[in-house]
Amino acid sequence: MSVQFGQITIIGAGLIGSSVARAIQRCAATATLVLCDKDKDVLAEAKALRLADIYQIDLVKAVTNSDLVILAVPVGAMAAIGEMMAPALKTGAIVTDVGSVKASVFKALKPFMPEGVHLIPGHPVAGTEQSGPSAGFASLFEDRWCILTPPEDCDKVALKALTALWEKFGSKIEIMEAEHHDLVLAITSHVPHLIAYNIVGTASDLEEVTSSEVIKYSAGGFRDFTRIAASDPTMWRDVFLNNKDAVLEMLGRFSEDLTALQRAIRWEDGDALYKLFTRTREIRRKIIDAGQDDAKADFGRPHKD
Amino acid sequence: MSVQFGQITIIGAGLIGSSVARAIQRCAATATLVLCDKDKDVLAEAKALRLADIYQIDLVKAVTNSDLVILAVPVGAMAAIGEMMAPALKTGAIVTDVGSVKASVFKALKPFMPEGVHLIPGHPVAGTEQSGPSAGFASLFEDRWCILTPPEDCDKVALKALTALWEKFGSKIEIMEAEHHDLVLAITSHVPHLIAYNIVGTASDLEEVTSSEVIKYSAGGFRDFTRIAASDPTMWRDVFLNNKDAVLEMLGRFSEDLTALQRAIRWEDGDALYKLFTRTREIRRKIIDAGQDDAKADFGRPHKD
Ligand SMILES: NC(=O)c1ccc[n+]([C@@H]2O[C@H](COP(=O)([O-])OP(=O)(O)OC[C@H]3O[C@@H](n4cnc5c(N)ncnc54)[C@H](OP(=O)(O)O)[C@@H]3O)[C@@H](O)[C@H]2O)c1
Ligand SMILES: NC(=O)c1ccc[n+]([C@@H]2O[C@H](COP(=O)([O-])OP(=O)(O)OC[C@H]3O[C@@H](n4cnc5c(N)ncnc54)[C@H](OP(=O)(O)O)[C@@H]3O)[C@@H](O)[C@H]2O)c1
Repeated sequence: MSVQFGQITIIGAGLIGSSVARAIQRCAATATLVLCDKDKDVLAEAKALRLADIYQIDLVKAVTNSDLVILAVPVGAMAAIGEMMAPALKTGAIVTDVGSVKASVFKALKPFMPEGVHLIPGHPVAGTEQSGPSAGFASLFEDRWCILTPPEDCDKVALKALTALWEKFGSKIEIMEAEHHDLVLAITSHVPHLIAYNIVGTASDLEEVTSSEVIKYSAGGFRDFTRIAASDPTMWRDVFLNNKDAVLEMLGRFSEDLTALQRAIRWEDGDALYKLFTRTREIRRKIIDAGQDDAKADFGRPHKD
Repeated sequence: MSVQFGQITIIGAGLIGSSVARAIQRCAATATLVLCDKDKDVLAEAKALRLADIYQIDLVKAVTNSDLVILAVPVGAMAAIGEMMAPALKTGAIVTDVGSVKASVFKALKPFMPEGVHLIPGHPVAGTEQSGPSAGFASLFEDRWCILTPPEDCDKVALKALTALWEKFGSKIEIMEAEHHDLVLAITSHVPHLIAYNIVGTASDLEEVTSSEVIKYSAGGFRDFTRIAASDPTMWRDVFLNNKDAVLEMLGRFSEDLTALQRAIRWEDGDALYKLFTRTREIRRKIIDAGQDDAKADFGRPHKD
């Protein structure tokens, strides 16, 4: 198999950037792989893990001569990086990203992109609550969806090349408008994170219930939320600031529905509760059937027998 | 080791009842183990799994001569069972339960308890989203907390015997007032379940986002909530109807905090978001340190490398 790219540069060597690096190495998609991070300790960690061919702290040097640049930094950092690297981008290069929000990232990068550079935003819907180069792994994207949000006038050859790369990682590809992506992810990812952060905050502020009690009895359901609420603060702050409208819209729906549930409890409307609780089971089943989660009880948390 | 009880009866052969049966067999705590369920198919399934010595559909026969009766049915079913079995209870017998709510269960059972029968409500804080006899396992209670809520005038010997049994299952015991239990579990279990059910409901009612999209992109966080929202509808309806006040109280706090978060997003107060998202990480760490969850990323969901 001939290599697909002469040089690929990944900016940001965290969970996602390092996983992309591993996936690229596994499928030998490039002759040279450059990894760039603003933090020299992170770069040293990446080097110790042998994640790339070249480790580069200087952004401009990192992107020079690259056929593909992948931005794997918090979405709030995209604009500054776009501006700084733009003059060094090669004509014909593809610039993509892995950010969790798409419309704002396109808006942040587009103004800086030189003529002849192809900007194709992307988002692999896969991740964990951990951060940093050591947290990544090559199979993170396998059997997961990667959403690409190319502009209408996107270069077909560039899009095909990027699609082929993600397919080599084991991902399934969906092409979507950026605004629709942001709405879909608001409900499947951003609002779930927000309410997880929120309930963990609520629980730790109570006076009647100590935080030691919250911890001891977290196996009743709460601990699931703490996993999500342990996700990277910078990344998630940026997500909410950059997908404000869709998040507020979906949050509005959530709150409306919660008020109805609250009312059902207050008025002891057992049938309404039972009906909802039966309907929600169905979605779980479909997620398992679609291979998007493990059928094992309790996420397959280990137990002895 | 001599057996602790002559006869133990478990009412309800579901996830928790069958796990208790397995745990009792494993530590050989009784000469005779009787398993009772109102559903003959469930009893047949339990028999095929060899979970007890005697399988009995008749409640009165099931409790006759028992030294310990453990109710493992939805909390809404407790009162009727208490009334029906009461005349057959042996003097000196202990009656306990595993229900997720405590004050209402005590209130439901107490009026029917004959003189000389020791009522000691209990709640093992352990479980999964699955139901039925096949879903249970003996180690479910290991390293988990079991909360007992004995009345003030509780018989010391009876309490000691029940405590010893749960300790044999590998549980850690906490003694608590029923009302306090209900408040603690409202935040660590009941409200988390409610908001999980709620967001799954919200997601499946959207018009702009199809349910096939919700399923495809659920790996962004949403799928975690569907696990909890796949829990038994009858059990959870009963929990909310029987712990109404504490749930409404905690839900009120949650909604207040969520409104503040919503406001922070609307006004782009990144610092407020960052602060909360940093604080919540700490609780996750403490839960892992306390052995109440796995430190592995993504709950240790399996991946190839
Ligand atoms: N985590 C997930 O589950 C997930 C899933 C899908 C998509 N995403 C998206 O993937 C992107 C990266 O997230 P992640 O989870 O990989 O985060 P991460 O582990 O925190 O990694 C981000 C890395 O980018 C570096 N960085 C930040 N600003 C930079 C800059 N100006 N120049 C060079 N490097 C910079 C960070 O360095 P410092 O540590 O020094 O700041 C860090 O090493 C985000 O846009 C996120 O929305 C995340
Ligand atoms: N699931 C958890 O994670 C968890 C954790 C801690 C405590 N709990 C508590 O444990 C109790 C049992 O829950 P579970 O998860 O084991 O539920 P489950 O798997 O649905 O089992 C409940 C069993 O009780 C039977 N039952 C219902 N009413 C009965 C009656 N009147 N007489 C005899 N049997 C009857 C049910 O039969 P049918 O199927 O025919 O109705 C079912 O077989 C509940 O009070 C719950 O709050 C649950």
